[in-house]
Amino acid sequence: MTGTLYGVGLGPGDPELMTLKAARILRQARVVAWFSKGGKRSHAHTIAASQLNAKHEEMPLIYPVTTEYQVDAPEYEQAIGHFYEESCEKISTRLAAGEDVTVLCAGDPFFYGSFMHLYRRLADRFHCHVVPGVTAMSGGWTNAHAPIAWGDDILTVLPGTLDSGQLAGRLKATDAAVIMKLGRNFARVREAIIEAGMLERAIYIAYGTMKVEQILPLKEKLDTPAPYFSLIIIPGNGRRL
Amino acid sequence: MTGTLYGVGLGPGDPELMTLKAARILRQARVVAWFSKGGKRSHAHTIAASQLNAKHEEMPLIYPVTTEYQVDAPEYEQAIGHFYEESCEKISTRLAAGEDVTVLCAGDPFFYGSFMHLYRRLADRFHCHVVPGVTAMSGGWTNAHAPIAWGDDILTVLPGTLDSGQLAGRLKATDAAVIMKLGRNFARVREAIIEAGMLERAIYIAYGTMKVEQILPLKEKLDTPAPYFSLIIIPGNGRRL
Repeated sequence: MTGTLYGVGLGPGDPELMTLKAARILRQARVVAWFSKGGKRSHAHTIAASQLNAKHEEMPLIYPVTTEYQVDAPEYEQAIGHFYEESCEKISTRLAAGEDVTVLCAGDPFFYGSFMHLYRRLADRFHCHVVPGVTAMSGGWTNAHAPIAWGDDILTVLPGTLDSGQLAGRLKATDAAVIMKLGRNFARVREAIIEAGMLERAIYIAYGTMKVEQILPLKEKLDTPAPYFSLIIIPGNGRRL
Repeated sequence: MTGTLYGVGLGPGDPELMTLKAARILRQARVVAWFSKGGKRSHAHTIAASQLNAKHEEMPLIYPVTTEYQVDAPEYEQAIGHFYEESCEKISTRLAAGEDVTVLCAGDPFFYGSFMHLYRRLADRFHCHVVPGVTAMSGGWTNAHAPIAWGDDILTVLPGTLDSGQLAGRLKATDAAVIMKLGRNFARVREAIIEAGMLERAIYIAYGTMKVEQILPLKEKLDTPAPYFSLIIIPGNGRRL
C-alpha cells in the first residue's frame, strides 16, 4: 500500500478562508511539505499553521537561488527542473513507504501553482488528492468591494510577465481583467494599463485578506516594485439588472 | 443599529468545500435568504444545509418566470430589475430593524453572482460583509485532474452567451479557457470550440464536486443541451518546469 499525495489549497491568506476539507486534511497530516525561498516559512505555511497538529513532520522544499537568471533563461529552467525532480524524489520515497504527504498550497493548487510541477510527475505513479481553494484574486476583489464580472463580461487573467504591448492589447480586448505576477513587472504593467485607458478602473491589492493587506486605486500606488503577493484587478462594466 | 448583510460564498457544490468562515456565519445566521427558481430549494441552499442552525428563518427570493424572454429583451430586464428591487425591499426592512440577513451564494459571490445585484443597491446604505468562495471552475478543473494555467498562460473566462464567431475568435487568442453559462448555448459553444481547433483539449463538467458530478471529454458529450451548472474547461499548455 503506497501513500496518498495531497495538494491542499489554503486560500488567499486569511486562515478562515481555507475550506472545511483543507482543515480536516491538515489536522490529520503527518508529513507536511511546503515550498520555501531561502528556507523561510512560506506564506502557505503561515496560513496552515493554526490547523496543523503538533505531531506532524515538516518537509521544506527549498527553491534554488534563481534570482540571477531571467525566467526564460535555459539556466533557470534547468535549475528549477532539477529542483522539482529532487523534490519528487523526496516525496515519492515517503509515498512508496506507505506514508501520506500533504503539500501546502496558497490559493488554488491548479491555478498557476508550483504544486502542478510535482503533480504532473507523480500523478501516474501514486494516488493524488487535490483540494481546490479560494484564489488570491477572489480574496482580492472581495476585500476591494469590487464585483469582478457581470452578465456577459469576459474576464481575462494575465501574467505580468507579458510584454507591455501584448498586455495593453489584451486589456483593450477584455471587459474585466486580473493581472498576476507583478513583482518586478509592476512598472511595465502600470504603463500597459495606462496605454489601455484603464487606469481609473484599476485597483492594486497586496497581501489580500492577510493582516498586512493593502488595497488602493492603482493611480495612488506610486512606488515600485510590488511584492510577489500582489495583483491588479479591473472590474467589468457588464449588465446591471 | 442596523443589521449586516452577509453574502456568503459556499463553493462549487461539495459542502466540505465551503470555507471555515462561511460555516461560522451560517451557524450564527438568523434570517437566511436564497435565490430560487419556481420556489424550489436552490443549489446554494443544498450546500449550506448541513451548517444552518435549526432556528433560522428562510427568505426565498423567487425569480420571476422569465424563460419566455430573451436575456437581452427589454421585458426581461424590466422583470428581473423589478425582482431585484423587491428583494432589496424585503432585505432592507430586516436590516433597518437591526437584524442581520445572510444571502446564500453558490461559488464566489462577486464572480458572476446574482448577489451582486443586491449588493450594488444596498452597499451604500447598510454594512455588508462578503465571504469569497471556491468557484465552480476551480472545483471543476480540480476534479477533472486538469491544472488550468501554467507559467505565463493567459486564462480567458467566457460566457456561453457570446455568439459563435466571437467565441471562436476569443478561444484562438487564449492559452487556457473556461466557458460558463452553457445551458441552451451548449451546441453553439461546442461548434466554436471545434472551429478554434480545441475540441481534443476540451473537458465538459456538469455539477462539479456534487454527488451527481459528470466529467467527460467534450468530444464524448453528444447530447444537448447542458444543465445550467455545467462548464467547459480548456487547460493551458504553458511552461512545464
